Amino acid sequence: MAEKYIYGFMKSKSEMPDVDKPKYILGGKGFSLVGMVELGLPVPPGFVISIGMCEYFYNNGKKYPEIFEKELKEYISLLEGETGKKFGDPKNPLLLSVRSGAAVSMPGMMDTVLNLGLNEETLNGLIDKSGNPRFAWDSYRRFIQMFGNVVMGIEHEKFEGTLEEVKQENAVEADIDLDVDALKEVVKRYLNLYETELGEKFPTDPMDQLKKGIDAVFGSWNNPRAISYRKINKISSEISGTAVNVQTMVFGNMGDNSGTGVAFTRNPSTGEKEYYGEYLMNAQGEDVVAGIRTPKHLNDLEKEMPEIYQQIKEIFTVLENHYKDMIDLEFTIEEGQLYMLQNRVGKRTGKAAVKIAVDMVGEKMINKNEAIMRVDPNSLDQLLHPMVDPKADKEIIATGLPASPGAVSGQVVFTADDAVSWKEQGKDVILVRTETSPEDIEGMNSAQGILTARGGMTSHAAVVARGMGKCCVAGCSEIAINEESKTMHVGKDVDLEEGDWITLDGSTGDVFKGKVQTVDPELSEDFETLMAWADDVRTLKVRTNADTPADAKIAREFGAEGIGLTRTEHMFFQEERIFAVREMILSDTKEQRVKALSKIEKMQQDDFEGIFEEMDGLPVTVRLLDPPLHEFLPHEDEDIRSIAKEMGVEYEELKKRKEALAEFNPMLGFRGCRLGMVYPEITEMQVKAIINAAVEVTKKGVKAIPEIEIPVTSHVRELEILRDVTVKTADEILKAAGEIGKKVSYTVGTMIELPRACVTADEFAQHADFFSFGTNDLTQTTFGYSRDDAGRFIVKYIELGVYENDPFQVLDQCGVGEMMKMAVTKGRSAKKSLEIGICGEHGGEPESVKFCHRIGLNYVSCSPYRVPIARLAAAQAALEK
Amino acid sequence: MAEKYIYGFMKSKSEMPDVDKPKYILGGKGFSLVGMVELGLPVPPGFVISIGMCEYFYNNGKKYPEIFEKELKEYISLLEGETGKKFGDPKNPLLLSVRSGAAVSMPGMMDTVLNLGLNEETLNGLIDKSGNPRFAWDSYRRFIQMFGNVVMGIEHEKFEGTLEEVKQENAVEADIDLDVDALKEVVKRYLNLYETELGEKFPTDPMDQLKKGIDAVFGSWNNPRAISYRKINKISSEISGTAVNVQTMVFGNMGDNSGTGVAFTRNPSTGEKEYYGEYLMNAQGEDVVAGIRTPKHLNDLEKEMPEIYQQIKEIFTVLENHYKDMIDLEFTIEEGQLYMLQNRVGKRTGKAAVKIAVDMVGEKMINKNEAIMRVDPNSLDQLLHPMVDPKADKEIIATGLPASPGAVSGQVVFTADDAVSWKEQGKDVILVRTETSPEDIEGMNSAQGILTARGGMTSHAAVVARGMGKCCVAGCSEIAINEESKTMHVGKDVDLEEGDWITLDGSTGDVFKGKVQTVDPELSEDFETLMAWADDVRTLKVRTNADTPADAKIAREFGAEGIGLTRTEHMFFQEERIFAVREMILSDTKEQRVKALSKIEKMQQDDFEGIFEEMDGLPVTVRLLDPPLHEFLPHEDEDIRSIAKEMGVEYEELKKRKEALAEFNPMLGFRGCRLGMVYPEITEMQVKAIINAAVEVTKKGVKAIPEIEIPVTSHVRELEILRDVTVKTADEILKAAGEIGKKVSYTVGTMIELPRACVTADEFAQHADFFSFGTNDLTQTTFGYSRDDAGRFIVKYIELGVYENDPFQVLDQCGVGEMMKMAVTKGRSAKKSLEIGICGEHGGEPESVKFCHRIGLNYVSCSPYRVPIARLAAAQAALEK
Repeated sequence: MAEKYIYGFMKSKSEMPDVDKPKYILGGKGFSLVGMVELGLPVPPGFVISIGMCEYFYNNGKKYPEIFEKELKEYISLLEGETGKKFGDPKNPLLLSVRSGAAVSMPGMMDTVLNLGLNEETLNGLIDKSGNPRFAWDSYRRFIQMFGNVVMGIEHEKFEGTLEEVKQENAVEADIDLDVDALKEVVKRYLNLYETELGEKFPTDPMDQLKKGIDAVFGSWNNPRAISYRKINKISSEISGTAVNVQTMVFGNMGDNSGTGVAFTRNPSTGEKEYYGEYLMNAQGEDVVAGIRTPKHLNDLEKEMPEIYQQIKEIFTVLENHYKDMIDLEFTIEEGQLYMLQNRVGKRTGKAAVKIAVDMVGEKMINKNEAIMRVDPNSLDQLLHPMVDPKADKEIIATGLPASPGAVSGQVVFTADDAVSWKEQGKDVILVRTETSPEDIEGMNSAQGILTARGGMTSHAAVVARGMGKCCVAGCSEIAINEESKTMHVGKDVDLEEGDWITLDGSTGDVFKGKVQTVDPELSEDFETLMAWADDVRTLKVRTNADTPADAKIAREFGAEGIGLTRTEHMFFQEERIFAVREMILSDTKEQRVKALSKIEKMQQDDFEGIFEEMDGLPVTVRLLDPPLHEFLPHEDEDIRSIAKEMGVEYEELKKRKEALAEFNPMLGFRGCRLGMVYPEITEMQVKAIINAAVEVTKKGVKAIPEIEIPVTSHVRELEILRDVTVKTADEILKAAGEIGKKVSYTVGTMIELPRACVTADEFAQHADFFSFGTNDLTQTTFGYSRDDAGRFIVKYIELGVYENDPFQVLDQCGVGEMMKMAVTKGRSAKKSLEIGICGEHGGEPESVKFCHRIGLNYVSCSPYRVPIARLAAAQAALEK
Repeated sequence: MAEKYIYGFMKSKSEMPDVDKPKYILGGKGFSLVGMVELGLPVPPGFVISIGMCEYFYNNGKKYPEIFEKELKEYISLLEGETGKKFGDPKNPLLLSVRSGAAVSMPGMMDTVLNLGLNEETLNGLIDKSGNPRFAWDSYRRFIQMFGNVVMGIEHEKFEGTLEEVKQENAVEADIDLDVDALKEVVKRYLNLYETELGEKFPTDPMDQLKKGIDAVFGSWNNPRAISYRKINKISSEISGTAVNVQTMVFGNMGDNSGTGVAFTRNPSTGEKEYYGEYLMNAQGEDVVAGIRTPKHLNDLEKEMPEIYQQIKEIFTVLENHYKDMIDLEFTIEEGQLYMLQNRVGKRTGKAAVKIAVDMVGEKMINKNEAIMRVDPNSLDQLLHPMVDPKADKEIIATGLPASPGAVSGQVVFTADDAVSWKEQGKDVILVRTETSPEDIEGMNSAQGILTARGGMTSHAAVVARGMGKCCVAGCSEIAINEESKTMHVGKDVDLEEGDWITLDGSTGDVFKGKVQTVDPELSEDFETLMAWADDVRTLKVRTNADTPADAKIAREFGAEGIGLTRTEHMFFQEERIFAVREMILSDTKEQRVKALSKIEKMQQDDFEGIFEEMDGLPVTVRLLDPPLHEFLPHEDEDIRSIAKEMGVEYEELKKRKEALAEFNPMLGFRGCRLGMVYPEITEMQVKAIINAAVEVTKKGVKAIPEIEIPVTSHVRELEILRDVTVKTADEILKAAGEIGKKVSYTVGTMIELPRACVTADEFAQHADFFSFGTNDLTQTTFGYSRDDAGRFIVKYIELGVYENDPFQVLDQCGVGEMMKMAVTKGRSAKKSLEIGICGEHGGEPESVKFCHRIGLNYVSCSPYRVPIARLAAAQAALEK
């Protein structure tokens, strides 16, 4: 079979393959170039050597088919015909660029060689043609450098070192200050360097240059960086190689009627339908990027070169109509002639993405489902929180992890108590801590935002702040806090003290000095429209994690369809409550414990009533006490003394009891259902509070749907035993409540957050009405990572390319995901109707949400501010099916 | 189909079902009774109501088939015919016992009702017959109590309370002191109690009593205790019910020509072929057990009742020939007439088990494979360690967990340093600690034994002690240590101080005051014979966990076929080494670290040379550094100061660096391969030490087979990257070693000890020469338990019947085992030849060893002293197939 290996993109021969996915033959870049020629747009002519050739190359010991060289020459001569130039002609040389281009964008492969075809002879032609010897010599030295480095593998530093020498000898600072003679010297030394390094002369034959260039592009497909990139990004084996794009050079720096620019068919920042772009006359693409000269706004081109402007406008329309999307393009004007060098779908802000998608449906360019697919769910995050005003003056003093989005300003305080008291005085504060602990909760709640020096994206500060919808920058290692003197040291030379103003951007992790202007989010009509379309197509339900009526309210406004996780322990940290909780923990006898529990019960019931009222008619999953008891323990001696007094025991005895509760690995210790197994009275108290709350609100006509959830189960007997305790306690209350009791129905289920629960999920399903994956803990135990300690090496692992994302942020589908799949399959094999959700942090992360859809979960649950993100991701997952 | 429900065991009708497994029809007890009748032995006649009837009962709403009552009456009249007594006859009443009996022994079901058939009238018959009114009245009151409690469910305490009242009223202490009148009073009150509790009169009709008794036995099959017992013990549904055994009562307390006894066909303690047993004249079984009177040795019966003695001897022969095993039996002599009440395979010590099994092969009673199956592998433990002399005078002052077997005496010391210095003075010491940490290693090594107040069977003390083959009692909560005053408080009233002698029994957990005589183990010829037979049949290899040449030597003598785990970190705790290790950990730069590592390298190499020499020709798996770095950190300020001085850094700085290394959950923190990923120089150092050691010993003609093992992997890229580091380092050394280098071959593999490694084992297999399951860590992460913290609730869980055994001791086959199976299947799917072993603590536990055989592992690895146990378990597993 005579396979075709070369595809032209020139007027005389434009060859779009007649297949479903031409990108898999031409690569992304080649596809856009052939596409533009097909659309009749002005493109410097060239051709694509197909991905098929790359496959052939690797399947045949890095050799080409015999016919290849002949074909290559044919296409070169077609190029020569079309441009009137000749490859290697000293008078009017055809110069080429050679680039790689796989079907998906793939950094790690060879990038670009420009000016291919230059040698001592053709250089003269370029000098004549441009009338600019400096330009020509500079082009030549760049070509030698690019070819030597990119194609032949000589270290970049060696060329830079040589260049530096000549600059020093000529006493100039910038490359641009080198004159023609100096550049000639550079070229001479580069050619020597090339010979010394490789033991052969620099190839002067353009065809030889081209063939080496093609070899290098194909070779780069399997260099270690590219292999590792594909592995990490799970680029499927369907993507089997790269294409090579060979294209005629055009120059925007040939004089005042030349130029170069970039443009967007709509405003990528706002989404408005307006032309948007920048250009520079007599310049190359690099100059626009380097920022040495200030580019002009595209509108100015209307006056400067009205015909070209008109032409670009028409091209905008052609491209948008063709690709049905906002397009970003690069163009070059060579001596009054416009050329398109590249186009691709344009990057945009979340706001712009929503507006463009909805507008295009209005313009009938795309349908609603396409609109849903057009918006990156993560980009919605920007829309839902205040942002630092992009126009404001500001000074970044440090950068940490973007732990919880939003932008806030406040006065620095260093303790939770100060946060509370300053707030009471009406001040806005930022709580700055080395790291937070559960004792800081009230302070965190009082603060506008939280800044920590230690801890990752799933540290205590980060998780709690996201739960509260509060701005947080975590793990900002540049700050050093002195809690005693109430000062902090930032980076090298900024010192701040209590009361100084700072501003946090929790979406970027930036910390600014002083009070920086922020802009509030506006939830546009477009946003509401898009979300309504998303809701129409998705099948995965979206719930929220909420511990207070206030959170529940926000989440419901954002479209939450219930609560997937209420952490009862988060209610425990208010002062009056923590006292009773500590009393409970430090009890030595069941009697002491029951007495303390009865104090807590009423408080919990009040909370649940508030939540049930907000969630009227929607399910509310309440997780029973989860964390290790000693998390609640007092640290201060005076606290221990006052509890001892209340309980009527000796201070020394209580202190000993407290110390005995310390654990080596609390995450794997006495927590979750293990508490209820040893102290069933704790479970009884919590169930009473939940069911009594349900009864109370039912009296007011509210529909409460409590789902009681047993955490940290690893053995089915734990579920069986605590389910019995729960049902017995609940049914007694409901029976006693008579007619009202009959209106309340509740379910009992379990968290699936330990590997053993996954592997025995069929047993669990027989005793559970629902499963809810706790993927934070499941990630911890599946990997054997403590989320509080793993920061140190996870950062290094991402650097080393072990994985692309922190598995606490983006669900590890291969490992943790396999566990989940197993649990779903086994669970449903035992109980077909089993309701299954997820309430870990991953429930608001789009890729993880899609995974949940694919493995058949019923719902995801996430923090209130991520509910819209999850809704959109769920819709996309449904459409991707 | 007319199913048969009742099977007689009497002379006139002895009905052994003609099926493969009559036990599944008759239950265990019924089977032994019918069997004895078939063998012509004297058995009080009776009948078995089959397990089939139990099934019918449950399948038909707790009703019996119509024919049942008729059949029952037929068998009663057969009994009457055989005994000449009549059921309910006031003159010569037939009295019966009713017992449950499933196919496997099942505590949790109904036990026994004796004297059924008694009422006010038949009582007179018993009085006449026995001539002993007190005996008859006491029998009657016991019957009411048993029937009321066991059959009708009245609380035991209520009967005991009533009895207590009467005793007080009569001013007597013991039951035995109640006279006939008092007993009549008891009967009266019992009958009242019965009526009050149940609202009905005590049944006087014997047939009514019998039917209620049968109902109760069948009912007890499904009482919660029994269900839970079956669930925990995974008693298959094949065992579908219990049988009911109805048997004529005989009495050993009818006078001086009556009696009762127990006997063994061989000595259950030594295994010698000699008659062994005890009896009491004019007594009931309870009297022998209660120990109020001292029983006589069976040999005395030869003089006392020579005919009976002769009869028993003959019965011994009949039973041994029939059952081909040592049998334990209960007999009663009623008025000169011998009756067999029960027989079963006799319990025996490990020593006896080995001797009996080997002797019986010599006697051609059984074959070698049967001999292998006859010995409980765990029982070998007693043979391999010194034991407390059973004859010695001794006072138990406390009991902890039997953490590492053996028996030792020594003087109490409270710190590792004291242990070392006392040992140097030639003293034998017991190291007593609240709990041990890695810093205590040298002290543990110097001590005869270790006693800890906290920590479970897999605590640091327990694990290290077992590795060292050193006696240890752990988690002995009755002791309270005051380290400052160097004293300890034991239980309520024993106080010990430094230098006092104590004795530990690590096989039972007992702690004795003073120096108690111990007896040394002798490895008999029989033991060697049995082990040789075992080795012939087993396919699973047995290796050892050993960190020193001394351990390796012992293990090899016990038959280890290689080392499955060398923990390099255990070598780090000697004083000179720990200093260098600390320097390494506290290094801030790679240079500092490399300098410190080079100090450690030579020491490690020496260790490895010693181990390779001992293991000449056998594989040695060396695990790279595993524990969290901060385990090695100095706690004392003076240590920090001297390290700071050595490193030339400030004390304050070093102290801060140390504090920064602390972790919340070290078990899930910066450890294992994560250390090598961040600091590859650590891996390089260790590989150098291993390979250089191999090269050195090869020069001496030793065959070293190093297997380098990467621990705590959860992602295949960790294995890939560290394998590369290992191979690069090793190959350089071997290349430099020339011809010697060519003789050394090594392999690289990984621990499988995290759930993610199991779930992605197919990926791991592509880069591993071998897998070794680390089931300690795998149990921790699969359950989400920290072995150091779980003691608190695991004890409670075992109490609650969640599981029968601590999963750190006996492999959790359903959960952790499923993970392992998955890893084996996935691993071998990617690499068929993959070698797989286990080196967790479970590798020496028989049930776990058998599981490893079943899932296709190549070897298990265990502490030296458990190697013979594993060999025998492996042989049994092969035979069980």
